[in-house]
Amino acid sequence: MNNMETAWKLTNGGIAAPRGFYAAGVQAGIKYKDKYDVALIFSDIQAQAAAVYTKNVVKAHPLYLTQRHLENGLARAIVVNSGNANACVGEFGDQAAYSMAEVAGMFLAVQPEDVLVASTGVIGVEMPLDRVLNGIRVASSQLLNDVVKGIRGRKEEADEGAHRAALAIMTTDTMVKEYAYELPCSQGGSIHLGAIAKGSGMIHPNMGTMLGFLTTDAFLPAEELQNILREAVDESFNMVTVDGDTSTNDMVVMMANGASGITLSEEDHSNFVKMVKSMCIRLAKDIARDGEGASKLMEVYVSGANTKDDARKIARSVCGSSLVKAALFGADANWGRILTAAGYSGAEFDPNKVDVYLGSLSVAQGGKGVSFSEEKAKEILELKEVQISLNLHSGEDRATAWGCDLTHEYVTINGSYRT
Amino acid sequence: MNNMETAWKLTNGGIAAPRGFYAAGVQAGIKYKDKYDVALIFSDIQAQAAAVYTKNVVKAHPLYLTQRHLENGLARAIVVNSGNANACVGEFGDQAAYSMAEVAGMFLAVQPEDVLVASTGVIGVEMPLDRVLNGIRVASSQLLNDVVKGIRGRKEEADEGAHRAALAIMTTDTMVKEYAYELPCSQGGSIHLGAIAKGSGMIHPNMGTMLGFLTTDAFLPAEELQNILREAVDESFNMVTVDGDTSTNDMVVMMANGASGITLSEEDHSNFVKMVKSMCIRLAKDIARDGEGASKLMEVYVSGANTKDDARKIARSVCGSSLVKAALFGADANWGRILTAAGYSGAEFDPNKVDVYLGSLSVAQGGKGVSFSEEKAKEILELKEVQISLNLHSGEDRATAWGCDLTHEYVTINGSYRT
Repeated sequence: MNNMETAWKLTNGGIAAPRGFYAAGVQAGIKYKDKYDVALIFSDIQAQAAAVYTKNVVKAHPLYLTQRHLENGLARAIVVNSGNANACVGEFGDQAAYSMAEVAGMFLAVQPEDVLVASTGVIGVEMPLDRVLNGIRVASSQLLNDVVKGIRGRKEEADEGAHRAALAIMTTDTMVKEYAYELPCSQGGSIHLGAIAKGSGMIHPNMGTMLGFLTTDAFLPAEELQNILREAVDESFNMVTVDGDTSTNDMVVMMANGASGITLSEEDHSNFVKMVKSMCIRLAKDIARDGEGASKLMEVYVSGANTKDDARKIARSVCGSSLVKAALFGADANWGRILTAAGYSGAEFDPNKVDVYLGSLSVAQGGKGVSFSEEKAKEILELKEVQISLNLHSGEDRATAWGCDLTHEYVTINGSYRT
Repeated sequence: MNNMETAWKLTNGGIAAPRGFYAAGVQAGIKYKDKYDVALIFSDIQAQAAAVYTKNVVKAHPLYLTQRHLENGLARAIVVNSGNANACVGEFGDQAAYSMAEVAGMFLAVQPEDVLVASTGVIGVEMPLDRVLNGIRVASSQLLNDVVKGIRGRKEEADEGAHRAALAIMTTDTMVKEYAYELPCSQGGSIHLGAIAKGSGMIHPNMGTMLGFLTTDAFLPAEELQNILREAVDESFNMVTVDGDTSTNDMVVMMANGASGITLSEEDHSNFVKMVKSMCIRLAKDIARDGEGASKLMEVYVSGANTKDDARKIARSVCGSSLVKAALFGADANWGRILTAAGYSGAEFDPNKVDVYLGSLSVAQGGKGVSFSEEKAKEILELKEVQISLNLHSGEDRATAWGCDLTHEYVTINGSYRT
């Protein structure tokens, strides 16, 4: 929603755009026919890696495995399945997650400890492990074919695999979420950033069921990568809410393999950090826009807060309010619900100072309604992207959160997800 | 949902069942035609009074007034309107709330400071004060007629006014919520407890838009009344969630006028405290059952928690989960969502110890799914009242919360509430 000039530009190749990265996606038949459901992401050299996990006390089995395998900050591959969360199934789940890493490692000729695992789908049901492992075998073989093409200088032919990987991580998503950026560096040459994500249901601050994977051919030590990723996630994925449910399975993983051979100047580094944040925000907005049953994207911008934390709380509270979401669906300029949601966010502020805007239309000043054109308000609320702004007039801190409207479709999807 | 023998029994008369209390409800035309929207509750002698308010930072104008008028712990009347929340309208709102108290006081011949005020309805729009005040005038005159009947020993003829008061506080409620209990006392005679409430949308722990009014002819000093009410509200209204939105307007007010002339024995007192809690739970369940668009009541019982606070957090989190609510609507035995909602509640517990039940059907043991009859589960989930239990197997604390399913109807109602 801003048109700022950026140092980087969009490019092709998705998650496999960075040098040395390959990806594949196959139809393993885990839950449905004709749906991609197993993905592989692979670096042909050792990569630094970092991850951010769900804060849910109940964590899916693959998360524990990935945490363990990331203790040394290194990884070669990520294997992902959709259709089954591999969560809450006891020992079977730990073993299944390990088998996924083991089999991927075997076919890709890397150590199981260098393979990270992610799953998404229904909770509490044992995964059909045979199908998953068979899917990994097929995906590996496709991916290795691409590696051979890459060695022969025809890596762009491998783009199809990257796209299929993006498809394979989707559940109730309706749009594929894959992007690649290219950042020209100050000493010549360029580095790349690839990313895929899935969202849809159960999306809430602290990463309701969402998965995000980022790859880059820049070199950054794992610890630094972790900080960059954590900060980017805090301003993006952690500011998205679809239905307030935080999932057991969510994680964002980033791999940096240094295959560009470029040493980042201070300026490059600063641009890189911004690029990662921009990518995460782009994916986060896609996730909100594509929330289950959503018909529009809501962006809530809070300024004038006393603390960053207050600004974040208010932005997320407004985005998460069922009443605001339903009013948005009905294009009803019910700004009282916006102020109310700010009021129960847990943030401290003076309600008598708050200004509220729908797009650029002022609807409340100093905590009090002003007369405005209902027609104009309706026009704004009927857009596909609706901006709501609150100025607290207290301090200097600000935050942005993203969400979507609450629709009949959401109820339909979630009334019958499992069966 | 339990059939425990109680010391008290249901009786007639609603909010006006206790001696010395009268009520009235009229159609003032605040928002809709042919809808009761102004209510009066009146004690013919001075009463001790207590109240619990919303925790929302944004509070409606009448709440400030009621807080001020309750500083001395005394009240004679409560005036309530629906159709307009008298919230977020600046100075006009404070003046309007005071005018309501002043006019009610004038017609009922009591000090304005002895009148409490409550409002519910749309936020941010100035109320049509003329209509509201005229409604108060008409209601006062009806009520005084009932007082005359009461003086002549025909108080039961005044029941109609109590029922109309119950109607007048409703907004999108579909069922009237009014009850009266009679408690025989150990020295002979009996005391009464009357109550009305409204709920429906915006119901969430810490009292999303809900109003509750209780009257009794027992005598209890204001301070003690406050403690009894606070405790009852914590276990009832504060354990209800419809849509997670906490309103600007909510309050529960209780008046005790001592008109029974009975001095409570220790046993009577203990029964009285239980009776108040029981009444509040009954109203809270009605509110959940009658949540906007709800088709069924959900009761979540958490046991084996380390602390009361953990038990409460988990019970409310499960009740508030959009995914659990939608699964309930679809009668889908998706117990993974129950465990997930417990996991993000903020409570500490070991997920590998948790047992989950739907009704009496075990669906997970030790945090892991067990095989169960889908048919039996569907039967349970299709009931009008669905019980979900979690045993954490960690400590001795427990809590119960109430909620409802998430339906298409909810979206429809809230997509077009204001317009």
